[in-house]
Amino acid sequence: MKKYGLHGKLSATAGNGDKLAAILLKASKLVSTAKGCHLYLVSKDKNTPDAVWVTEVWDSKEDHDNSLAVAGVRELIAQAMPLLAGMPEKGQELEILGGAGINQQQ
Amino acid sequence: MKKYGLHGKLSATAGNGDKLAAILLKASKLVSTAKGCHLYLVSKDKNTPDAVWVTEVWDSKEDHDNSLAVAGVRELIAQAMPLLAGMPEKGQELEILGGAGINQQQ
Repeated sequence: MKKYGLHGKLSATAGNGDKLAAILLKASKLVSTAKGCHLYLVSKDKNTPDAVWVTEVWDSKEDHDNSLAVAGVRELIAQAMPLLAGMPEKGQELEILGGAGINQQQ
Repeated sequence: MKKYGLHGKLSATAGNGDKLAAILLKASKLVSTAKGCHLYLVSKDKNTPDAVWVTEVWDSKEDHDNSLAVAGVRELIAQAMPLLAGMPEKGQELEILGGAGINQQQ
């Protein structure tokens, strides 16, 4: 079922991690019905308190890239940008071999 | 819906990444029905060709820890150990705030 995965960190300015997480949770709702989207998780890591981690699984990198054009996503990006401590780093790209817990038929 | 996440790397000895991945894919089937398991993905990262990445979401750390006692899991661990290049590193622990793609009612 090979799929495209991305595990990345968005660093907020001091104290703004929760605001950034709230925006990313809104984004997860928007992209959840996008073509090829299997997973979009928003997390915190206690070792990086001002950062928010996003873990995504898509049918392909192309589907991921197209998600930036989903209605409303650009507006959320615009809201998030002033909260970021610098440009987002490139996330870890994964080749998902398989496993349990996502809809493999989708 | 806060949940416990774990994103970790298992490094295989040279050339044994695919064998290790096959064992972990078997493990994913065993734990998929364990209490509190929402996600168990097995991946490769082209930057770490002999490593296998496992991304898990559980209701709690306790549920994750209990999964090591699921029938058959210890046998798979025993098969995997000789393939590993050293002891597994501690993975990245995540507090999953929410998102899309996993069963939130489970």
